[in-house]
Amino acid sequence: MADNVVSAFGNSVISDYSKLLKDFGVESSSKVIFPSPLTIMRRGIVFGHRDIKPVLDAMKLGKPFAVMSGIKPSNFFHLGSKMVVDEIVYFQKHGGLAYYAFADLESLVDNGLSFNESREFAHDNLLDLVALGLDLKKARVYLQSEEVAVQRLAYVYSRNVTNNMLKAIYGEHPIGMYMAALTQVGDILLPQVEHGLLPVVVPVGFDQDPHIRLTRDIAVKHGFIPPASIYHKFMCGLSGVNTKMSKRDPSSVIYLNEAPNVARKKIMKYAFSGGRATVEEHRKLGGDSAVDVSYQYLTYLMDDDKELACIRDDYTSGKLLSGELKKILADLVEDFLVKHQDKREKARSVVSKFF
Amino acid sequence: MADNVVSAFGNSVISDYSKLLKDFGVESSSKVIFPSPLTIMRRGIVFGHRDIKPVLDAMKLGKPFAVMSGIKPSNFFHLGSKMVVDEIVYFQKHGGLAYYAFADLESLVDNGLSFNESREFAHDNLLDLVALGLDLKKARVYLQSEEVAVQRLAYVYSRNVTNNMLKAIYGEHPIGMYMAALTQVGDILLPQVEHGLLPVVVPVGFDQDPHIRLTRDIAVKHGFIPPASIYHKFMCGLSGVNTKMSKRDPSSVIYLNEAPNVARKKIMKYAFSGGRATVEEHRKLGGDSAVDVSYQYLTYLMDDDKELACIRDDYTSGKLLSGELKKILADLVEDFLVKHQDKREKARSVVSKFF
Repeated sequence: MADNVVSAFGNSVISDYSKLLKDFGVESSSKVIFPSPLTIMRRGIVFGHRDIKPVLDAMKLGKPFAVMSGIKPSNFFHLGSKMVVDEIVYFQKHGGLAYYAFADLESLVDNGLSFNESREFAHDNLLDLVALGLDLKKARVYLQSEEVAVQRLAYVYSRNVTNNMLKAIYGEHPIGMYMAALTQVGDILLPQVEHGLLPVVVPVGFDQDPHIRLTRDIAVKHGFIPPASIYHKFMCGLSGVNTKMSKRDPSSVIYLNEAPNVARKKIMKYAFSGGRATVEEHRKLGGDSAVDVSYQYLTYLMDDDKELACIRDDYTSGKLLSGELKKILADLVEDFLVKHQDKREKARSVVSKFF
Repeated sequence: MADNVVSAFGNSVISDYSKLLKDFGVESSSKVIFPSPLTIMRRGIVFGHRDIKPVLDAMKLGKPFAVMSGIKPSNFFHLGSKMVVDEIVYFQKHGGLAYYAFADLESLVDNGLSFNESREFAHDNLLDLVALGLDLKKARVYLQSEEVAVQRLAYVYSRNVTNNMLKAIYGEHPIGMYMAALTQVGDILLPQVEHGLLPVVVPVGFDQDPHIRLTRDIAVKHGFIPPASIYHKFMCGLSGVNTKMSKRDPSSVIYLNEAPNVARKKIMKYAFSGGRATVEEHRKLGGDSAVDVSYQYLTYLMDDDKELACIRDDYTSGKLLSGELKKILADLVEDFLVKHQDKREKARSVVSKFF
């Protein structure tokens, strides 16, 4: 299943991040000091960046900067989707102007979703964004299809690309996908269009790097500051570290809006285990935390470093059994979902007013 | 100078309209009965159409129909631009919903005009539209860059074309031009998006037929009534029947906003004459009305058929000299411009409010 091809329009499983850093000229985050970092920043799950220094400088000096990201609203948010949201909220809390685009033009051209279907997903996604801490009153959140400011930028920026350039960056695609790509350039440059020159950070999965490269190129041509980006590793599917969460396989993914007890059962039943064939063998040899999905999920979701280290030691030494490890994750996820969904309910009135 | 290639993005000079009818499957207008026809309809200057019958039927029965057209706002209107406007006003007066798009997204991608520059031209063009009789209160007039309804339709319709299809229809162009073409499909189908199924007629120059074919194809796929079109012959440049009006050669073109006495001088000085080398020869052999630009212009601009027939007889028989023919046109154009520009001034307040 390992696949090193990065496609902005696809959903590749990436197994070798160090190779990506080298091949694409992305800098490693290992030496980047994020103030009061998120767990995923401390643990190197945020593994790379482009040009983050001007953003960190602005944060340090209290100068204006922005954070910009978005989603193709074609699905509910899952545990993996949480990362980008946490990153946006992080930068917003550190003083950044927050921009968030629901790329419903892309869910139309890519998935054939109507604007109404996309709007339903966007509405649900926004509940998660607010529940995870986004201050909607201070954020600029929009549906692409309703935002003329960004759509017409696609035409402006179309003058800076050739058809061959688009093919080289994205591969051969129908024109609508190229249009969606140019609209995304419009999204990413919108903070500077609306607020003048300022550093902008775009937290994204690495598969979005082609958009970042295209945008940085066009930004320079229009006298903007090339936007920075940070990249995180993808959360794997429940069925194994080299699988991905898939809409077509509900047992592979835990959605943020699904019943907490169902999520618990999924983890207990489907999470791929790094344990041994028998309890005796496990006690003797220990489990393999590198392929154990429950342990891997904990590296994303458990904030306490000491507790996590204990768990790993106990698991790899054989003291902790696979079922027990699963239960730790299941407890944590169930507890998180109960609290998160309570916050979602409280967000309903403000989100409904927004849409 | 004869050139039979039709390009929606170019400005070809067309000399053989019967060949166009045959090659492109456009029907001749010769058998079409327009009620209370415009001069250019009676005289076969409106030479062809696609599928006009449902529109004429709706007109006859007083049923809903629409007229839709537009312009790339990259220049002032000239005598030739008047035709499309007269056609729109004609259909509006006969009960049609009038739609008019200023394609500033196209003047951006094609000519590099900023939205502000396009807006200046659109403002001036709209003065002409109102002066020529458009009822702005009953019309839906917009700048593409400000109309999210039409921009997002470009993404919807992008799903109905392949890159090869676009290349086959338009030739190889930068992506922005294809985007502009899809936006134009959005413009043309907008009346049915907003008012439900109804016959729509699009008065255009024949060079716009590729857009019409693309739109009719997409219309069927979305369950719309394929829009009808009518085509008129181009008005030639002042310097000859096989030349075109050109912005780069101001002596070739008479703008609707230029000083009437300057227009008079242009005609007297530059209008290509079908007259003979000497007065004696002219009296003996007569002038050639087929190549005389003044006479050709009169076929567009002089409403009285009998008067026009007299002029042609007198000119071809040698009774009327070239200078005298020029003077007839110069008088008519000067008089028209004086009155037209008075109406433009009166239109200023309503147009300024619009922009």
